[in-house]
Amino acid sequence: MRAVFLGTGGTYPCTERNVASVAIQLTRDVALFDCGEGTQRQFMRSNISFMNTRWIFITHYHGDHFLGVPGLIQSMNLNDRKRPIDIYGPEGTIHLMSQLLTAGYFAPGFQITAHDVEPGDKAILDGFDVEVARADHTVPTLAYGLVEKERPGRFDTKKADELGVPKGPLYRKLQLGQEIKVGGRTIHPSDVLGPARQGRKVVYSGDTRPCRQVRDLALKADLLIHDATLLTKEGVMAADFGHSTPAEAAQIARDAGARALALIHFSPRYKGQKVLEEEAKEIFPNSFAPADLDEFVIRISDR
Amino acid sequence: MRAVFLGTGGTYPCTERNVASVAIQLTRDVALFDCGEGTQRQFMRSNISFMNTRWIFITHYHGDHFLGVPGLIQSMNLNDRKRPIDIYGPEGTIHLMSQLLTAGYFAPGFQITAHDVEPGDKAILDGFDVEVARADHTVPTLAYGLVEKERPGRFDTKKADELGVPKGPLYRKLQLGQEIKVGGRTIHPSDVLGPARQGRKVVYSGDTRPCRQVRDLALKADLLIHDATLLTKEGVMAADFGHSTPAEAAQIARDAGARALALIHFSPRYKGQKVLEEEAKEIFPNSFAPADLDEFVIRISDR
Repeated sequence: MRAVFLGTGGTYPCTERNVASVAIQLTRDVALFDCGEGTQRQFMRSNISFMNTRWIFITHYHGDHFLGVPGLIQSMNLNDRKRPIDIYGPEGTIHLMSQLLTAGYFAPGFQITAHDVEPGDKAILDGFDVEVARADHTVPTLAYGLVEKERPGRFDTKKADELGVPKGPLYRKLQLGQEIKVGGRTIHPSDVLGPARQGRKVVYSGDTRPCRQVRDLALKADLLIHDATLLTKEGVMAADFGHSTPAEAAQIARDAGARALALIHFSPRYKGQKVLEEEAKEIFPNSFAPADLDEFVIRISDR
Repeated sequence: MRAVFLGTGGTYPCTERNVASVAIQLTRDVALFDCGEGTQRQFMRSNISFMNTRWIFITHYHGDHFLGVPGLIQSMNLNDRKRPIDIYGPEGTIHLMSQLLTAGYFAPGFQITAHDVEPGDKAILDGFDVEVARADHTVPTLAYGLVEKERPGRFDTKKADELGVPKGPLYRKLQLGQEIKVGGRTIHPSDVLGPARQGRKVVYSGDTRPCRQVRDLALKADLLIHDATLLTKEGVMAADFGHSTPAEAAQIARDAGARALALIHFSPRYKGQKVLEEEAKEIFPNSFAPADLDEFVIRISDR
């Protein structure tokens, strides 16, 4: 599982950064969080195909977070997509998508399903769940937590050997949770597997002031991706516009017990992002401020 | 007057080319022809400010020609634009813009006026007229001819001297078409000015098969910017999708007696554009195939 930061800028694009979009590659399928204008071209510059996007999650309806949806969908169609796509967002998503995705002469040749979701909702998807929380911005905004399904426990080869299980296809059956018979004796998966391991968890805050809801959603997340629009030294500007500073994002990550923090949604005023990363690292050392197209691998941890 | 090719690609963007948009800088004001997704960021990479866009002309409602409008307008608003903007396009423009420009939480702080125009219409604008013709594409599509207003004739300093006009502010008055008095004698502008000189003319075809209407619109144009999506060797593909080849564009330029031809709307299949330029040059030597962000200065000619 990896996160590819397609656009790390906020408000409007600049030469250095495109607007909000983060792709989370699961298996081959990609879950896309926000989709600002130009996201399809950022995909083309990355090593992920935009055609692999299976789900899109929009946090809110400011232009820098959703105006790339119609172009992405139209290019999928021009490339003969047949697989369905699902688009999730706050109230109004179904209506807005019905307008955006029929603007001009466009009739998709594949199934597009828009979903209005609200804080507290949970979407059960293929291989993972998505939990929805309320963020704290100037307009209704959602944060999303992607939680991978539980993974089977570690396979104890020594125990399997003691029980007389031969190496090979029977190992796989046990790993998949199936009972097997060896020499007339039934062996249960629990005889050779350790406790189920928690799946990986990635949380995407959307635009937000630091808030309890995002902190709770990010509890023990492997990766928290959080708004860090403006440095603390810009005074109350971050608060005035419903955003966070790197220091505030770092406090949320620390309080949530997250493993890593990615800062995003940088104001176009900043050249580079080192100064934003440094502010966060003072509070939460495992912070990083990606450049556009940087990626971060989310490894399996033993917790 | 200069043309800046913000996006020379067609259908969908690729890493090398963005989708359709050409900026014509007049004085400080810019007339923008088409505005595909990502046009605002192309502006940011060019040496023209997107804030100077005063008029937008959309040829038709395929996504690669208009999906950049809402983002451009929203960024203008975030940068405190106060000047009005006018958006012209085929039937449905008023309705479509009312949807696109209110999508999500957006309320512009400056006046945006959308206009439905049709073939044969002429818009009288500040310093130039825009003539509208029907292009030949798969959906209703317009071509636009930007015609600079007549320029005053050349000032004959020798004649002015003979008539006793002193150098200085009186020259300017005559150039502006005002009568002056010198020693009790009335001097008319026509006494010192040659015949009025035709203004410059730039024609933008939109997506089109080669057609009579675009040829007529381009009569003696200083610059014809024409669809050249696919090479002739791709067989009937250009015709099937309502586009032109470089050879067809060159024939139109030659038949119209245009001074220069810019090819645009290249298929994403082409790396570079030299091969497209070469095909056109065989028929119309003053052809060129710009890369994104290339510019072309349209000089005053004495015709």
